[in-house]
Amino acid sequence: MKQLEEMIRQKGIGIGTDIVKVDSFLNHRIDVGLATAMGNAIYEAFKDQKVDLILTVEASGIAVALTTAQAFGNIPVVFAKKGDHVNVGNDVYAADVYSFTHKQMNSVRVSRSFLPEGSQILIVDDFLANGEAIEGLLSITRQARCHVVGAAVCVEKGFQEGGKRLRAEGLKVLSLATVESIEDGKIILREE
Amino acid sequence: MKQLEEMIRQKGIGIGTDIVKVDSFLNHRIDVGLATAMGNAIYEAFKDQKVDLILTVEASGIAVALTTAQAFGNIPVVFAKKGDHVNVGNDVYAADVYSFTHKQMNSVRVSRSFLPEGSQILIVDDFLANGEAIEGLLSITRQARCHVVGAAVCVEKGFQEGGKRLRAEGLKVLSLATVESIEDGKIILREE
Repeated sequence: MKQLEEMIRQKGIGIGTDIVKVDSFLNHRIDVGLATAMGNAIYEAFKDQKVDLILTVEASGIAVALTTAQAFGNIPVVFAKKGDHVNVGNDVYAADVYSFTHKQMNSVRVSRSFLPEGSQILIVDDFLANGEAIEGLLSITRQARCHVVGAAVCVEKGFQEGGKRLRAEGLKVLSLATVESIEDGKIILREE
Repeated sequence: MKQLEEMIRQKGIGIGTDIVKVDSFLNHRIDVGLATAMGNAIYEAFKDQKVDLILTVEASGIAVALTTAQAFGNIPVVFAKKGDHVNVGNDVYAADVYSFTHKQMNSVRVSRSFLPEGSQILIVDDFLANGEAIEGLLSITRQARCHVVGAAVCVEKGFQEGGKRLRAEGLKVLSLATVESIEDGKIILREE
């Protein structure tokens, strides 16, 4: 998606060989016009399918999940909660997800009542690297006997294995921008 | 705000004397049409003031912060991060916030570069109870030498002290719905 790629070129910061810092517009400060445009782009890619709800994981997936849900005509967003939330209760679907950012295992949880059996689900998240978060959400949707129509992410790290593995499993994965590599602090994007 | 009050009456769950459970439409599953309407309502209350950015705290404040920012014509959202985020770095404003939900102190942090001195800031959050989260965000804005035009929340627990204290400090506080009390599992809303 051109608008996101342009923003990554202008404001993204590459660190070392694998850190893509986009917190000035995506996951700490949010460029709301861009977030809205990304939601529309995700809708365009999945609009031919029946989608009942958007599933994401807190916190930085919420913004684009919401704008995607708006584009689908205000369908619900459900965001999985991390850790042992007091308020979530025990009647949950849960999966363990390894966080590379925090170097620890996180439990992600969704209340059972918010994933009715048979729901058609689109997974949305900000980043796809090793695919752990999306695998966790897929596990939750399997427990809930829901059908996942695909996964859409803003930024895929093309040099990590998550996207390749998820596509090999048959999942439709849309990345609005794919980082090929990081060279001397510069983020190199994959050309379409 | 009628639409929110109606939803609280229909789907909110009162537990004990002080827990207001609205996770079926506000902070776990998000009713996106309602979130958009709440953003518009917050805009209506603050549209006569210059607002440069919306400040909130992850995770459940993000949705309404985003829809409010859309109503203001796509101004940026900055969300404070909880805990010791590896990705936030050290160049941050920080404040300690006690979480009643998790019964622990959380550090909330915002990168300095996202709060330019002199910015006009509207604080948005999902809940106002004891006011700890908003006090933390106010501390961060003072450190950043920004001006807070007000705070808007979806649900205020009118029987806790946060709203009263913040208003006594001179802050303009907008609550889209105020819970007066919880009686036998029923949420009693304050009449306008």
